[in-house]
Amino acid sequence: MDTDALVDAVRDGELRFHELEQHADFDTAAEARRRLVAAETGADLETIGEYAFEASEAEANVENMFGAAQVPMGIVGPIDVDGDAVEGARRLPLATTEGALIASVNRGCAAIRAADGATARVLKNAMTRAPVFRVENVAEAKETATWVRENTDELAEAAEATTSHGELREVTPYVVGDNVFVRFGYETRDAMGMNMATIATEAACETITDATPAELVALSGNLCADKKPAAINSVQGRGRTVAADVEIPRDLVESYFKTTPEAIAEANTRKNLVGSAKAGALGFNAHAANTIAAAFLATGQDIAQVVEGSNAITTADVRDGDLYASLTIASLEVGTVGGGTKLPTQAEALDIVGVGGGGDPAGSNADALAEVITTAALAGELSLLGALASNHLASAHEELGR
Amino acid sequence: MDTDALVDAVRDGELRFHELEQHADFDTAAEARRRLVAAETGADLETIGEYAFEASEAEANVENMFGAAQVPMGIVGPIDVDGDAVEGARRLPLATTEGALIASVNRGCAAIRAADGATARVLKNAMTRAPVFRVENVAEAKETATWVRENTDELAEAAEATTSHGELREVTPYVVGDNVFVRFGYETRDAMGMNMATIATEAACETITDATPAELVALSGNLCADKKPAAINSVQGRGRTVAADVEIPRDLVESYFKTTPEAIAEANTRKNLVGSAKAGALGFNAHAANTIAAAFLATGQDIAQVVEGSNAITTADVRDGDLYASLTIASLEVGTVGGGTKLPTQAEALDIVGVGGGGDPAGSNADALAEVITTAALAGELSLLGALASNHLASAHEELGR
Amino acid sequence: MDTDALVDAVRDGELRFHELEQHADFDTAAEARRRLVAAETGADLETIGEYAFEASEAEANVENMFGAAQVPMGIVGPIDVDGDAVEGARRLPLATTEGALIASVNRGCAAIRAADGATARVLKNAMTRAPVFRVENVAEAKETATWVRENTDELAEAAEATTSHGELREVTPYVVGDNVFVRFGYETRDAMGMNMATIATEAACETITDATPAELVALSGNLCADKKPAAINSVQGRGRTVAADVEIPRDLVESYFKTTPEAIAEANTRKNLVGSAKAGALGFNAHAANTIAAAFLATGQDIAQVVEGSNAITTADVRDGDLYASLTIASLEVGTVGGGTKLPTQAEALDIVGVGGGGDPAGSNADALAEVITTAALAGELSLLGALASNHLASAHEELGR
Amino acid sequence: MDTDALVDAVRDGELRFHELEQHADFDTAAEARRRLVAAETGADLETIGEYAFEASEAEANVENMFGAAQVPMGIVGPIDVDGDAVEGARRLPLATTEGALIASVNRGCAAIRAADGATARVLKNAMTRAPVFRVENVAEAKETATWVRENTDELAEAAEATTSHGELREVTPYVVGDNVFVRFGYETRDAMGMNMATIATEAACETITDATPAELVALSGNLCADKKPAAINSVQGRGRTVAADVEIPRDLVESYFKTTPEAIAEANTRKNLVGSAKAGALGFNAHAANTIAAAFLATGQDIAQVVEGSNAITTADVRDGDLYASLTIASLEVGTVGGGTKLPTQAEALDIVGVGGGGDPAGSNADALAEVITTAALAGELSLLGALASNHLASAHEELGR
Repeated sequence: MDTDALVDAVRDGELRFHELEQHADFDTAAEARRRLVAAETGADLETIGEYAFEASEAEANVENMFGAAQVPMGIVGPIDVDGDAVEGARRLPLATTEGALIASVNRGCAAIRAADGATARVLKNAMTRAPVFRVENVAEAKETATWVRENTDELAEAAEATTSHGELREVTPYVVGDNVFVRFGYETRDAMGMNMATIATEAACETITDATPAELVALSGNLCADKKPAAINSVQGRGRTVAADVEIPRDLVESYFKTTPEAIAEANTRKNLVGSAKAGALGFNAHAANTIAAAFLATGQDIAQVVEGSNAITTADVRDGDLYASLTIASLEVGTVGGGTKLPTQAEALDIVGVGGGGDPAGSNADALAEVITTAALAGELSLLGALASNHLASAHEELGR
Repeated sequence: MDTDALVDAVRDGELRFHELEQHADFDTAAEARRRLVAAETGADLETIGEYAFEASEAEANVENMFGAAQVPMGIVGPIDVDGDAVEGARRLPLATTEGALIASVNRGCAAIRAADGATARVLKNAMTRAPVFRVENVAEAKETATWVRENTDELAEAAEATTSHGELREVTPYVVGDNVFVRFGYETRDAMGMNMATIATEAACETITDATPAELVALSGNLCADKKPAAINSVQGRGRTVAADVEIPRDLVESYFKTTPEAIAEANTRKNLVGSAKAGALGFNAHAANTIAAAFLATGQDIAQVVEGSNAITTADVRDGDLYASLTIASLEVGTVGGGTKLPTQAEALDIVGVGGGGDPAGSNADALAEVITTAALAGELSLLGALASNHLASAHEELGR
Repeated sequence: MDTDALVDAVRDGELRFHELEQHADFDTAAEARRRLVAAETGADLETIGEYAFEASEAEANVENMFGAAQVPMGIVGPIDVDGDAVEGARRLPLATTEGALIASVNRGCAAIRAADGATARVLKNAMTRAPVFRVENVAEAKETATWVRENTDELAEAAEATTSHGELREVTPYVVGDNVFVRFGYETRDAMGMNMATIATEAACETITDATPAELVALSGNLCADKKPAAINSVQGRGRTVAADVEIPRDLVESYFKTTPEAIAEANTRKNLVGSAKAGALGFNAHAANTIAAAFLATGQDIAQVVEGSNAITTADVRDGDLYASLTIASLEVGTVGGGTKLPTQAEALDIVGVGGGGDPAGSNADALAEVITTAALAGELSLLGALASNHLASAHEELGR
Repeated sequence: MDTDALVDAVRDGELRFHELEQHADFDTAAEARRRLVAAETGADLETIGEYAFEASEAEANVENMFGAAQVPMGIVGPIDVDGDAVEGARRLPLATTEGALIASVNRGCAAIRAADGATARVLKNAMTRAPVFRVENVAEAKETATWVRENTDELAEAAEATTSHGELREVTPYVVGDNVFVRFGYETRDAMGMNMATIATEAACETITDATPAELVALSGNLCADKKPAAINSVQGRGRTVAADVEIPRDLVESYFKTTPEAIAEANTRKNLVGSAKAGALGFNAHAANTIAAAFLATGQDIAQVVEGSNAITTADVRDGDLYASLTIASLEVGTVGGGTKLPTQAEALDIVGVGGGGDPAGSNADALAEVITTAALAGELSLLGALASNHLASAHEELGR
């Protein structure tokens, strides 16, 4: 069917809005939807329809597709970073609508370069999924938890049978009354791994329900915790736990940030540590989520996982007159395969960073991406702290923003 | 200068990478950057360069622009909602790379429609900014806090002099040792309002530092709390606090979700309430951030603020055999003017919802958008809870996702 | 009846264990219980029976009384503090079983004295109670919340009619789906005020249920939040919010703590700020709860409220080579009338501090007690930080403890 | 020296206030202090001086002793509980000044007995201590964390060399920038174990600083987390993680609590789950801290650890018309040897429970105490929920309290 036919069929009730791809190619289906939506709402959908890829390429990523959102993309760097998986300068594309963000991150990158680069490390790596089971009482709960602790090999076997890449690393049971939660943590190589973890966990759940009195209530019991602010992630990590740091000589602090190491350290303590403490926060940073969100959007990550990415702590101290600063992100969930990474602009963005597709060894591309993003976010922290310390946050927004 | 000239000038060190717009139109500057980045990294940047707007339109949103990220956009609805600012059916575009998300939200929307619609309300509205001041000791801290409490009119006058739309609603001082934090809350109408609040607060800070011994350390002291998971937001709200609910008859629960009200209520209690409690969470929901992130991306919101959007509580109970479910988002920060809302695809997306630009009365468009997004997120909650309760989360991803 | 008769009557099933006071004086009833319990369990209850007061004096504090717990009481001070309600040196009794605690606090007190004293301030004062109401849906929830916001005078009238001392200061509604929570905050003078607040709130609830569609579900809805760790208290305060600080010259830091201001500041940042941040804490201090618990026990406070007392932040910084340190307790709930304050040893302990009974003006005794306890807890913070910084925590316990 | 001589010596500056035990027996020293304090403050210290034990017995528990605090002690039970370490009925003494508490807990115990008893289980047992180390940068941090993970045997050897009872069970490193925290978890048998853990950890720290570039900053880095509200404890547990539950037939709910299973379940959901969620809480219970505090005080536990005890979740559901309720305490720190357990009234109280001294097998007495306290706290939860559900919380306090 062509566009007109599709539109008519929907209007006549012969076809449902989400079924169009069964009767036409994907771009035609999208066009028909734009026509229908435009007619229904009066909206002009011209630019939404001007996307630069084949709609069918997005089949695994979206339903009811009728176009694309376009977000301006800028670039920061070179980011000079000594990591486990990356060495030397990388550029990082950031897609954002927040004026001044890229300029700010870039200023931090320049200072880091001038200071001979940052250091970054992936400290832990485990994508988690935590189903919840119902038991009769606390006696059964203990019985189930004990069984889980004593049979991790069997659980690993069941879980890993579902995947060629994933590996079960951690299994921890938690009991609350007649609820048993089991948190599974997987090594998922270059994939962010949420789906892999979900499918593997489903298999492991069968093993548990077969061997114990527990019955599965929900494949996710919120101890995962996916896309929710939760201390379990900020304490234990989820996805990659990554840290980056840099030591910036006093004169460079002064020339790049128009302030002193002491002023930045003070701003960090009063704002990021004491202020966050008083706020009841899980995030002790200035605006790490900004850089993470923009990098996630550009490189095809799951942007709802910016929530976990914000579980980050920034430190800043004066060392022998110079500035030492670090950013540690507890739960940075990134991948270079799967999800949105295959989409055209996203794949190109990953190529800019030099981490498109699976790495060699497996996992090294996602490690590298994590190290680069964390270093860029550290640059953003430095720059905003510098701006606050030299008192020109509002004026920066006045000049560069709306 | 043309593209070649720009590229050469950068290579020769005559021009810096971020200065190109001073010497050429914005699209030429972007093209030159693509050429430079492609040459440097070996990446092909074809689709990143095929954006559907004038680069100059994004001037206020990005620096170092070299193209755009394109994210497939689908649509959900009609969303049948009785709100304060919206009445009846609206469509909501969602930009996402997460397969199954739109289908899932849409299933929830269908159930809500069948149940004669949801109810939604904006319960509170205050965009906050909280600077931190340094004082000599706790005596001065009390003196400063007391002055702030007793001079809110003067602070309002100073703050409101900077804005034609904003209104100062709340001023609360918090003391920690020699730190005084002052949380300002503004009514910002149809703007998300972060920049308005920052600029107004800067003016108010001068009033404080003039009248008290306090010295400003940072214009943001993290009690705002912007883009960080923080209890102060989940308790007191930030931006809009919005709730939506629906009562779904048992037969519709069974037909739409293949499960029972009891099973959904149980899954909600064990997962969203008890599980989140055990996880040390600030978010007691299934995946509200998914819907919020996709709607934010489509409609030009600040996607890093998905962090605050995830401060949401889902409830589900059996009422006379039927299902009652609600979603309350403590801190949903949305606008229909400013930020990314003027960008072409984003403006079109807002038009689909029927909330483009300033509302009449002022603030009503952002209210309506908040009510629609919250209802869509409620639909997503219902659908995921239904899937979990009927045990097919993993298989849904297997079919629709990667 | 005499002891024998009571014992026999219980054994014969003629009298129930908790009814003895209806048939004998309170001390005889207690003795009979000791006999019964000793016989049942084989325990020797000699010292439990050797309490130093009339059992009838404890009538309002305990049921099924059969004796008393005796906890050794030491004393710290003089505590040199410049507060709003206290000026100069006070002694503070601490009842504890933790060896080294009193010596530790006392060392801090000595350093504070040598440094010419600490400063303390009560920054806020509001005992809270927060009932939860059920409504039909979010529309009713908004209606109810709005009514509450607009009728605080009527609520104050209802609440204050139940009390001669209390005054309603704050009323804030919070909505979650079909739940409306209303947090009432009272000035309760020299009483800790939990019961006063509960009774006054019960009256205010009737006003709400009369005027709105809301139905009361529970007089406490856990936004109070009494005896639970909760961010709402650490952010907004409960009972008294109190801060104390001191500046200690470098030479005194060295002589009293065998370490430097820099080492104490570093230990505080890494442990109390960064460590607590990583732990997902609401308490950013070293061991404030120790001092608070011991003071609460000695002076007749509600020891379960040590939970809220631990919502405290310690800061320590180097100022011109000297040490500045502060402790801010968000929610310190103390009284000098009511509760356990009238019991003999407790009343004597309050007399030692000079704050027994109601103050003049009303509230000043409880303010003074709060300032003294906070300063003592600051002393404890200094001492433990000093011990950690000079690396002898374990050895202190080895020498003084078990 | 006799009392007069001591008093004179202190007044003449020949002896310091804390040195008296070096020149007289402990009771004489205490008497001299009372004389000095009474003279200084004008307070009458008669009952404080009438303690029922030898002052020397408290030598390890207190310094500057001058008497004792006496808190009325009541008793609850029989507590009918089927645990791992306890079977059948136990009495539990509670020392409290909160009127109505014992009556309330006792009512719950009666209902539990009528329902044929509760079930209780110790789910985990690990006393933790977490030092913080300073490293040069994140590379060294990773190196140190990796060394720790790979050398747990060596760490166990060092730690266990310091103790005859303790056993190192868990060692987990956490990195934040240039901070490395290592959380050690010990099996400590019948001891609460904080000192044992501290001493053992000090030894393990030497092993770490010898083998890695890390330097010890503080033996406690607040990831322990001792006496602070912290998610790491509520998630992972500290001391014993204990759960108790009971199923109470509908008719017994009605007769004991004058309400229905549905009303109790509703109150629990709205208050303990949703209310606590909105409050940003780590404690999702009604008043577990009350029972825990009173039991801790009676049995010689560390009352500042009530803070961790309040990390508890209560659930209540209707099962086939009856009430199922549970209480799970994440971090209950108890011992039957060491600390305050040897003091006379405390030892007698432990004997009442039948858990005085070391258990056979080792650890079973502390397990039993944990199971009994948790069941009593569950009884308290049931009773307060029942009171709230039947709307008479305020009136209960009016009748029984002040």
